[in-house]
Amino acid sequence: MSALPKEVKIVEVGPRDGLQNEPEQIPTDLKLAFIAALAGSGLRAIEATSFVHPKAIPQLADAVDVAGRLPPAEGVTYSALVPNQKGLDRALETGIRRIAVFTAASDSFTKKNINMTVDESLATFAPVVKSALAAGLTVRGYVSTSFVCPYEGNISKDRVLDVTTRLLDMGIDEVAVSDTIGAAAPTDVFETVGHLLKSIPPGKFALHLHDTYGTALANVLAGLQLGITTFDSSAGGLGGCPYAPGASGNLATEDLVYMLDRMGIQCGVNLQTVFEASSIIADKWGRTLPSRQWQRMKAACR
Amino acid sequence: MSALPKEVKIVEVGPRDGLQNEPEQIPTDLKLAFIAALAGSGLRAIEATSFVHPKAIPQLADAVDVAGRLPPAEGVTYSALVPNQKGLDRALETGIRRIAVFTAASDSFTKKNINMTVDESLATFAPVVKSALAAGLTVRGYVSTSFVCPYEGNISKDRVLDVTTRLLDMGIDEVAVSDTIGAAAPTDVFETVGHLLKSIPPGKFALHLHDTYGTALANVLAGLQLGITTFDSSAGGLGGCPYAPGASGNLATEDLVYMLDRMGIQCGVNLQTVFEASSIIADKWGRTLPSRQWQRMKAACR
Repeated sequence: MSALPKEVKIVEVGPRDGLQNEPEQIPTDLKLAFIAALAGSGLRAIEATSFVHPKAIPQLADAVDVAGRLPPAEGVTYSALVPNQKGLDRALETGIRRIAVFTAASDSFTKKNINMTVDESLATFAPVVKSALAAGLTVRGYVSTSFVCPYEGNISKDRVLDVTTRLLDMGIDEVAVSDTIGAAAPTDVFETVGHLLKSIPPGKFALHLHDTYGTALANVLAGLQLGITTFDSSAGGLGGCPYAPGASGNLATEDLVYMLDRMGIQCGVNLQTVFEASSIIADKWGRTLPSRQWQRMKAACR
Repeated sequence: MSALPKEVKIVEVGPRDGLQNEPEQIPTDLKLAFIAALAGSGLRAIEATSFVHPKAIPQLADAVDVAGRLPPAEGVTYSALVPNQKGLDRALETGIRRIAVFTAASDSFTKKNINMTVDESLATFAPVVKSALAAGLTVRGYVSTSFVCPYEGNISKDRVLDVTTRLLDMGIDEVAVSDTIGAAAPTDVFETVGHLLKSIPPGKFALHLHDTYGTALANVLAGLQLGITTFDSSAGGLGGCPYAPGASGNLATEDLVYMLDRMGIQCGVNLQTVFEASSIIADKWGRTLPSRQWQRMKAACR
């Protein structure tokens, strides 16, 4: 186990992974205000939208508009999810410089979500990644269900290693090892991520955690102890299931920043500014957000 | 850093620390049903009530009644908080066999809460502990604000060691190192608890965590890595501030059990039964509880 890193990078996924899982749509201008506020917080990587089919995710149907009007911000890299060649074509129109592709470590999961096996999904986006790289873009990749699949249960670490290796071989520069349903505990992180690190350096990985059972920050600690220095999070914890009040989706950026600050680990993100960004969405909906830290800051405003 | 323990003990503090911080009172019979359900879950240590002055904490004004009618349960040890000799006298009437006393590592905190310095509080309950031990009871002790004080900020680890040592010297068998406002991060646990462990064995400690900022389970992981095997938690995460919906108080027993189960660490507690116990309180109030796991289980019931 390494000493704790002194510095980490946060990849803000609220505008994409957060908003795509919320039932209520946000008008494009408000989304752009949200993204601008996030960009002003010190976050250096923001996943802004997704070029999936508008019918699949109506919340992000304005992807071309959002990606085409992203607020210029010094040092901020915006990315967008791209599922296929058509998605890439739309992305290229907007001038966005980084894309993300996604697969999973479980066939049941990809079958249910994109009606392909994992192999088929890799075959589908291999030429997309090639075109994107040829156009000078950079590419990140998600490996969903890297620990637990809602249909298959526990996922073998060798399977995760296999999918990860194939992504890196395509020229993808960062693999987000994803606890899609938030079921992982620190032992899962030690086991699976520890296994990946035997053959791949930590700089190639991000940990993408959900806080379904409250274990996300414990899993961050495990990741830090393994030398991982990139973590995905979502402003306010956006991405919760609408049917359970206060339900938690993604690890909240505010909670992550609080813990990193308290641990003396630099992330360069201003907590108050992230809180204000999240509040743009919360105020629009007139509801609370899952982030513990957001809730405390909100209560302190009263 | 030790290997992770194979087994831990959970001290359930919901009926005391949980309910004393909730605005709505629970009728005595319902409290006893709650406690009986907890005792049936496999929990071996339950803090049932507090013998503080009824005017100070009206929620627990029925302490004598509760403690006198505790459901007999094989292998379960009940305890009650006792602030002074008068509290002990009331406790002794009820036949309870374990008490807990409390102080803090910060004078500002004890001054605000019990109008004494830490030294004065130790002097006040030293004879109480002596009487209790002489009567054949066992005694646990809380050191509030062991990491951060809301009035003084960061607390020196030497101060915590000093207070802890004085408690152990009185014959107290377990010191609950308490993150009263839930501000600690894992580095705080490594630093302060690591310092205590240089001179005191881990079996003398419990970690008493609050989940205000979502760091509680990360702090549990840090504690486990240091060899701590006793953790306090509150069913449903009871003890949240009423003015912030979904606000988190104590680390939730359900969240702790979920993580321990997933890590393969035995705690002997049945998650479903704890959920049902917490639901007795939630249903009475008709509201949600802060525990992430409780929320998921509740959503699954719909």
